Amino acid sequence: MTPPPAAALERFFRPRAIAIVGASDDFTKISGRPLKFLLDKGYAGQIHPVNPKYAAVAGLRCYPSVSAIPGPVDLAIVAVPARAVLAAIEDCVAKGAPAAVVFSSGFGEMGDEGRALEAAVAAAARRGGLRLCGPNTLGFMNTFDRVLATFSQAGDGDTPPGPVAFVTQSGAFGTAMVALGRREGLAFGYFVNSGNEADLGFADLLGWVLEDRRVKVVAGYIEGLRDGRRLLDVADRALELGTPLVIAKVGRLTAGARAAASHTGALAGSDRVYAGVFRQKGILRPSDEEALLDLAAAFSLCRLPAGRGLGLVTQSGGAGVLMADRAEEVGLAVPELSAETQAALRGVVPPFGAVRNPVDITAQFIAEPALLRSALELVLRDPGVDLAIFYLGLMERFADQVVANLRDVHAGATKPLLVAWAAAPEGARRALREAGICVLPTATRAVDAAHGLAAFAEHRRRRAAPVGDGGGTPPAAGAAALARLRAAPGPRTLGAVEACELLAAYGVGVARLRRVTSGAAAAAAARALGGPFAVKVDSSAIPHKTEADAVRVGLRDPAAAGPAYDEVTANARRRHPEAPIDGAIVQEMVTDGVEVVVGLVQDPQFGPVVMVGLGGVLVEALEDVAFGAAPLTRDEARRMVEGLRGARVLGGVRGRPPADLEALLDVLLAVSRLGVDAAGAVTALDINPLLVRARGGGAVAVDALVVLGGAG
Amino acid sequence: MTPPPAAALERFFRPRAIAIVGASDDFTKISGRPLKFLLDKGYAGQIHPVNPKYAAVAGLRCYPSVSAIPGPVDLAIVAVPARAVLAAIEDCVAKGAPAAVVFSSGFGEMGDEGRALEAAVAAAARRGGLRLCGPNTLGFMNTFDRVLATFSQAGDGDTPPGPVAFVTQSGAFGTAMVALGRREGLAFGYFVNSGNEADLGFADLLGWVLEDRRVKVVAGYIEGLRDGRRLLDVADRALELGTPLVIAKVGRLTAGARAAASHTGALAGSDRVYAGVFRQKGILRPSDEEALLDLAAAFSLCRLPAGRGLGLVTQSGGAGVLMADRAEEVGLAVPELSAETQAALRGVVPPFGAVRNPVDITAQFIAEPALLRSALELVLRDPGVDLAIFYLGLMERFADQVVANLRDVHAGATKPLLVAWAAAPEGARRALREAGICVLPTATRAVDAAHGLAAFAEHRRRRAAPVGDGGGTPPAAGAAALARLRAAPGPRTLGAVEACELLAAYGVGVARLRRVTSGAAAAAAARALGGPFAVKVDSSAIPHKTEADAVRVGLRDPAAAGPAYDEVTANARRRHPEAPIDGAIVQEMVTDGVEVVVGLVQDPQFGPVVMVGLGGVLVEALEDVAFGAAPLTRDEARRMVEGLRGARVLGGVRGRPPADLEALLDVLLAVSRLGVDAAGAVTALDINPLLVRARGGGAVAVDALVVLGGAG
Repeated sequence: MTPPPAAALERFFRPRAIAIVGASDDFTKISGRPLKFLLDKGYAGQIHPVNPKYAAVAGLRCYPSVSAIPGPVDLAIVAVPARAVLAAIEDCVAKGAPAAVVFSSGFGEMGDEGRALEAAVAAAARRGGLRLCGPNTLGFMNTFDRVLATFSQAGDGDTPPGPVAFVTQSGAFGTAMVALGRREGLAFGYFVNSGNEADLGFADLLGWVLEDRRVKVVAGYIEGLRDGRRLLDVADRALELGTPLVIAKVGRLTAGARAAASHTGALAGSDRVYAGVFRQKGILRPSDEEALLDLAAAFSLCRLPAGRGLGLVTQSGGAGVLMADRAEEVGLAVPELSAETQAALRGVVPPFGAVRNPVDITAQFIAEPALLRSALELVLRDPGVDLAIFYLGLMERFADQVVANLRDVHAGATKPLLVAWAAAPEGARRALREAGICVLPTATRAVDAAHGLAAFAEHRRRRAAPVGDGGGTPPAAGAAALARLRAAPGPRTLGAVEACELLAAYGVGVARLRRVTSGAAAAAAARALGGPFAVKVDSSAIPHKTEADAVRVGLRDPAAAGPAYDEVTANARRRHPEAPIDGAIVQEMVTDGVEVVVGLVQDPQFGPVVMVGLGGVLVEALEDVAFGAAPLTRDEARRMVEGLRGARVLGGVRGRPPADLEALLDVLLAVSRLGVDAAGAVTALDINPLLVRARGGGAVAVDALVVLGGAG
Repeated sequence: MTPPPAAALERFFRPRAIAIVGASDDFTKISGRPLKFLLDKGYAGQIHPVNPKYAAVAGLRCYPSVSAIPGPVDLAIVAVPARAVLAAIEDCVAKGAPAAVVFSSGFGEMGDEGRALEAAVAAAARRGGLRLCGPNTLGFMNTFDRVLATFSQAGDGDTPPGPVAFVTQSGAFGTAMVALGRREGLAFGYFVNSGNEADLGFADLLGWVLEDRRVKVVAGYIEGLRDGRRLLDVADRALELGTPLVIAKVGRLTAGARAAASHTGALAGSDRVYAGVFRQKGILRPSDEEALLDLAAAFSLCRLPAGRGLGLVTQSGGAGVLMADRAEEVGLAVPELSAETQAALRGVVPPFGAVRNPVDITAQFIAEPALLRSALELVLRDPGVDLAIFYLGLMERFADQVVANLRDVHAGATKPLLVAWAAAPEGARRALREAGICVLPTATRAVDAAHGLAAFAEHRRRRAAPVGDGGGTPPAAGAAALARLRAAPGPRTLGAVEACELLAAYGVGVARLRRVTSGAAAAAAARALGGPFAVKVDSSAIPHKTEADAVRVGLRDPAAAGPAYDEVTANARRRHPEAPIDGAIVQEMVTDGVEVVVGLVQDPQFGPVVMVGLGGVLVEALEDVAFGAAPLTRDEARRMVEGLRGARVLGGVRGRPPADLEALLDVLLAVSRLGVDAAGAVTALDINPLLVRARGGGAVAVDALVVLGGAG
């Protein structure tokens, strides 16, 4: 899917004239509510009700069809029963309208018949060059321009414009989030429900609102994606613009996945892939509703910090410890303040306070208002502090004084400052927000928001100084190997020998091996390899050879190769009588190094994605793996590895030397390149194990498997 | 420390007469605020201001000293400067007052001098039989009986009595939590700040409020404990009473690992021990402030569920997916509803809804109010559902109708029902609370609260049907071995041989070994053992023998034993020239089985605690270990093992058979017994590795280390 032409979405989101197909002057109805919203909120463009039953609706001239409207129409709001939608869209196309939002339900969400109708509607739109949002959507609001093309309750009451854009696949849940957010003082410039996504998808809509410079943060809620690659492009653009994407993705676990399948027609890919590519591309993924709204608030108001050093100032030691805990847990530093800062703080903080970080100014600041201000200013000036949180509790009586001090500190600060105020008086919260200060209700949530700011800032810095993509030009040997594979198409599986050949062509080190078809040949091969060797059955139909007792390892005497050959082939035949046996492989034994699994898979959402996991028990017992979309940069590959829970194994534990991380990254980049080159040919690839030797020793693929297929 | 006499705390928490030492009629002062609170709130007992400066305070007769008060005094509130506190306490003792709460700061929190003063005050109290809370405390409130012995802002405004008791080590943070909780409609029957805990500790105070039958949930906030064992007793009592303890423990993460001979010893006092004993004893540990308050709300209002089956009913598919995700993450089941329930739901839920669980009733319930009620009743009746959550979003206009329906459902339900209502109108929230329904603001928080209910209920059921403590009588051999160790006291470390002897005396299987002091003896020992063997240096001063290259494993030929002896002793001498070398150990090789680490340590808070971890890379790279306080029950030991992140390794991965879990539990129980028996003698013990063989094959300790010490 190509990105939507910007012009079409410009007229979708900022129409100069809107037709409401099926318009009603019953303002409680789905077909009446947008008309009321547009009139009430002062939409400046033209509004054309369309309904053959009426000559006028709410005092506006009503047309029998869109085609009958004399002037141009930019956006059609379609609020007619499902069976009448196709005709309505054809009418819009006849008129030359570039965009429509279709509220009507009764499509893909209702089963096969609805799906067919939806496909027909989408096809008609596509043929007519009309971009369509929906069907089965609450519509959207662009409150900057007072375009309320929605019947959502989010349009009720005040709808102030503001820096938050929110695109959601779930209408009802999205509406609830807007309500929660408004209660916390968030102002939504955009609220968009993508509905069934027959034409415009989540990423298309997200990508457009991102371009509006009045938007400072783009939030999203998804259950699955039709076109993950488009989202990755949007994420790149978001980093370029410095506008964060904050996207809650649900359907993470199996019970949730079941609910998603029954809810929308969305195809849910593995959540681990989402987690990986979100991390890779700097998309922030809040854990729940409040975390999403907190991040929206923080990015609306705060500048980005220059690093991860968090200064904590409290009037309560307890909150300080809690915040320091949480900071360490999420990966923020709480650096001890410089000797200078501490000395200066000691001059203002009472002796029973604390000055190292967290700084506890104690309740004394009530009696000495200047204390709060001095302490915060000192902490914000400390060279190790990149952003700060001030925590305070119940303070009804002195709220005005606290607000005045915080306003002053904030006005003079160049680093971001968040306030965590438990049970803050409503007036104080509002006053702080109006002064541009982000106020959150708890210590933990403030730290999480601070972490979001720091994480996104880090992604931006990383993007500004990329560390080479490590891809280089496609290796000629690799291209040739792929060409040979493509020459014999159709689904099939390559065993270790061919798989290792392909990997070697891409520059991956593989353990030397020989294919043999007799015991005598096995002995000769063992002699030729020299040193310890292994004998394994050669059959691509038996992926788990150890379980089939079809592997002999740790052999030293070439004379042992013959009997080993006989055993492994006999065992394989006995355990897998159906499997074709090609003989056996004699391979040099590589035993030193950390066991790693590297994989490649064509993901339905994100295309070729690379996987890495620490081998053996960590993968088996903990599924400790990370994903990234190809092509990977070297830096992205590094972050994948460093993000593994067991990553410290590579650093050397139990007296072992550190592993050759750079060699592992080389392999990930080679597989990434292969994934891009082989789109449509290689469906999946496993290197298991890859042994990563001590630093400088490289990495060696010991076994591998490649699944070839048709469409990627 | 023995539990405080109930009578003394009865008069502390429910005094019939209160003296306020240092009383002032300046009600803005620390010394004036409690007087004002007691007067304003209608405290029914006698109030006696004590201050030599005044004849009367606030219209009450003022006495020059506590002794001068004519009638009895149950509680003294001490609000004088630190230097005057000792005299005040002696005055109280002279009067025969049984209890005091000391607001004054300037004690242990101020350094050595303050610490000495605090010790003197505590000693005076102890000598005089007076129980003391503080110093450096905000005091406490018992709002049931209108006893406001506090100057906290938590006493300002309305202080309605209610089922939540809250004991906190942090005054300011605790006050903020009370404010946050009241905002959510929580009513605090007790609010207690334990201050410096010179006498009464956190667990003492917690234990007393737990006994008040008007209290339904006891919340706590701690940074550390003086007497963890007392907390464990309180936790047992809480399970007996069915009143949950919900305790936030901060100071979770500690930078820098301590060097210690014993792996387990390094973790003593760490947060992992807290986590383990909390889990063992059914103490719920919320992750942040809001989670604590949510649990307090849920336990205040909800009965306990009979199991972990969660029914989810929503008007938004999105919220359903989010809740199902979260439920799976925390360990609640979201069972597919029975065919009968689904069929019945299909009769009421619109076709574009969902009926499997989550149930999506769609926005249709606005038009058909009976739909909400029918669907919820059907879900609550489903045999797989033990508790249910109803989620809804923004619904200003129809709130009354929703409230009425929920009230009806709740009144007729025998299972707990929670409501998650995003941006609920305040009136609706209040109405639901008054009807006894717990309302939380987000989907995620409702699931977390539901999980708390289910987890505590499970602990209660487990307690009602204990699975034998597995301890039995102390083995005679063990007692004898311990007696020998005690006969030679003083700190020292036992090497593998003696450590394994001690373990064997407690019934733990150990790999057969021989101690040798020459190469020839080593060869003879190897011949005697028969089969594969290992040779390791014998030196208790070298705990990490592999790193010292002082181990040779996998030997088969007894002739190899002599050279191996020479190598390991030479390497040990070279790497550790300071270490005394006793010769070497020749031991049978045990290689099959899952590698496990078992430990025992005398924890400063909780006494003897047992540790278990999955060996090798999981312990090294992930610190995947669990703790439990001795004595363990078999069920507790089982939950420790099952709670390990890598627990599935024991179930058999990569084609291996399941491990002998019961044999591992036997070892944990033996070590637990040893920990209890050896209090004061054994400071720490490591079995590393313990190899747990395939089911039925038992478990074998291959290496072990025991640290003997003075005080445990």
